[in-house]
Amino acid sequence: MNTELNNTPHRRYNILTGEWILVSPHRTKRPWQGKTEESKKEKKETYDPSCYLCPGNTRASGDTNPDYKEPFSFVNDFSSLLPDSPEIDFEEGLLKAESEKGICKVVCFSPDHSLTLPLMEEEDITKVIQMWKKEYEELGAKEGINYVQIFENKGAIMGCSNPHPHGQIWSQSSIPTEILKKSIKFKEYWEENRSSLLGDYLEQELKADERILEENEYFVALVPYWAVWPFEAMIIPRRHLQHIGQLNTEEEKAYAQILKKLTIKYDNLFETSFPYSSGIHQIPTDGKLYPEWHFHMSFYPPLLRSATVKKFMVGYEMFAGPQRDITAEQAAKRLNELSDTHYLKQ
Amino acid sequence: MNTELNNTPHRRYNILTGEWILVSPHRTKRPWQGKTEESKKEKKETYDPSCYLCPGNTRASGDTNPDYKEPFSFVNDFSSLLPDSPEIDFEEGLLKAESEKGICKVVCFSPDHSLTLPLMEEEDITKVIQMWKKEYEELGAKEGINYVQIFENKGAIMGCSNPHPHGQIWSQSSIPTEILKKSIKFKEYWEENRSSLLGDYLEQELKADERILEENEYFVALVPYWAVWPFEAMIIPRRHLQHIGQLNTEEEKAYAQILKKLTIKYDNLFETSFPYSSGIHQIPTDGKLYPEWHFHMSFYPPLLRSATVKKFMVGYEMFAGPQRDITAEQAAKRLNELSDTHYLKQ
Ligand SMILES: O=P(O)(O)O[C@H]1O[C@H](CO)[C@@H](O)[C@H](O)[C@H]1O
Ligand SMILES: O=P(O)(O)O[C@H]1O[C@H](CO)[C@@H](O)[C@H](O)[C@H]1O
Repeated sequence: MNTELNNTPHRRYNILTGEWILVSPHRTKRPWQGKTEESKKEKKETYDPSCYLCPGNTRASGDTNPDYKEPFSFVNDFSSLLPDSPEIDFEEGLLKAESEKGICKVVCFSPDHSLTLPLMEEEDITKVIQMWKKEYEELGAKEGINYVQIFENKGAIMGCSNPHPHGQIWSQSSIPTEILKKSIKFKEYWEENRSSLLGDYLEQELKADERILEENEYFVALVPYWAVWPFEAMIIPRRHLQHIGQLNTEEEKAYAQILKKLTIKYDNLFETSFPYSSGIHQIPTDGKLYPEWHFHMSFYPPLLRSATVKKFMVGYEMFAGPQRDITAEQAAKRLNELSDTHYLKQ
Repeated sequence: MNTELNNTPHRRYNILTGEWILVSPHRTKRPWQGKTEESKKEKKETYDPSCYLCPGNTRASGDTNPDYKEPFSFVNDFSSLLPDSPEIDFEEGLLKAESEKGICKVVCFSPDHSLTLPLMEEEDITKVIQMWKKEYEELGAKEGINYVQIFENKGAIMGCSNPHPHGQIWSQSSIPTEILKKSIKFKEYWEENRSSLLGDYLEQELKADERILEENEYFVALVPYWAVWPFEAMIIPRRHLQHIGQLNTEEEKAYAQILKKLTIKYDNLFETSFPYSSGIHQIPTDGKLYPEWHFHMSFYPPLLRSATVKKFMVGYEMFAGPQRDITAEQAAKRLNELSDTHYLKQ
């Protein structure tokens, strides 16, 4: 580690996207007089009669949820993508558009309205992972579905409109920008080294031991060197796997364990139900082989200083590129100093 | 215009970045139960003794603002970039970083605390434009400053921590990601056609007349075909100019006029002081010629349905790519139906 970087404005390179991020470690001293978020601490009930995701309740579409006991998925009542869009290919001078087909699903993680991943039992998180596997494989096998994006928006500040523990899956025919960027970098490295870019990075991180958050036999959680969001983290399988469909039973459990550990740290950081968007990046389901790819899950949490002060990605970030104040190492250190027991259970 | 696209989920191509954006026109019917923003309507005073940007007041740094009557700029007291960072070039296996030098400035648009661009007089907005020109040229002429980003974060929801009318300028030695992307596309087109990509696009838009918002002799404001934010807009000079330093006196005035007109429409949309981040994209100041470039200013406003309901760029958007609900044409139509007189002055 070059310690001078700790006090110097610098750029770090994201090996997965080929983009740079600006780090301003000296800037944390700045006072904050701007917008603060509400932080709700009220206790949630295990069942909410007005929640459209709770078992047995009726949704906006008129459908009634079954009395589910395990993770439950259904087609989003307000899907952004539809399976039967007409085929349109439009090009007129400099205007270019094409229709897009897809299927959007909602995955309820638990029937219990009051829970979140860090408060769920490991066995129950394992079932969520099994559901993700099943959906990835089933959606991916469908005609015309070439990519499956699994994600969770947690917290009102992340645009989540319902506190019931749930995530989403948007699957579609074209391969999205973020995946294309990473594909290029994985491939470049593979062609030169015949090994996994992320696997080799993981080894280097394990040796350096400055940004590692959690480890078990099959997975590692760390703050990537090029993290953008203040407490961004990544979960990486030790095995060079292209997608979650390849996880074996032991790995499913290990994934659930590390997911729980990481999200407990997150909740403990500001003693709040920590908001984030998380997502799994894995290979397209277009039938091609992508031996260079190494699947991983990322967490982009907006909070910076407290339960109510977030980092805004605006102005400079929108027009130039991402910028952060604390370094990845400082973020990892803060997370590592926290208890492994959830603050509500201490 | 392909009218089928109005009801069909589709992707549109951004000719300036080479990236696609997902459009889901059928999705506006979705009810919103999520987070709503506060919308403050209280009247602001023309002078606020506690504002660190008002004339004569003392800032956090201890410096006192002069009793300025025209746009006033100073070095940001909490600059993200510093002019004298030590030279560091770090590479160790897959970790790569380098120090970054720069200068960050704040530009107060007016001494009057209560104003915003749409409420300012055209002559006074012209002075802001002249200040931007001066800063672009002076900062850009400095040793080691190769790019100058002028931007404004307006509104608390856009991370702006002070309501006094002001913008920022971050200038730096390396050329940021967003500019690099556009440079590639401008250049490709130039080499093939020897004309301006954005100039040719502008001509096509003027003929189609579906997304034009405002026009004068020297500038056009429109909703770009590939708009990401619900009411995104772009101001484009008719002349093929690479940077604002090239504006003549008539063009400065015309720029001020269209800036005022566009921001009045914005405020009128939800009868609120409309939040946005705006920024000018122009050529690097590294001394090279960029004949292919065509400068422009973009507005990224987050509000979607009302003064309190915004579009969240989270989950899918972070992991896959941008997504919007209303089409660019629908957005342009709504803006065009509004009065040209500011709602506070009607
Ligand atoms: O410089 P300010 O106004 O304190 O800060 C604001 O603008 C900056 C530049 O877009 C962002 O990096 C910050 O996240 C935002 O809060
Ligand atoms: O689908 P939801 O939860 O209604 O909506 C949320 O997630 C979507 C996917 O990330 C975003 O496009 C929306 O802006 C956000 O509010």
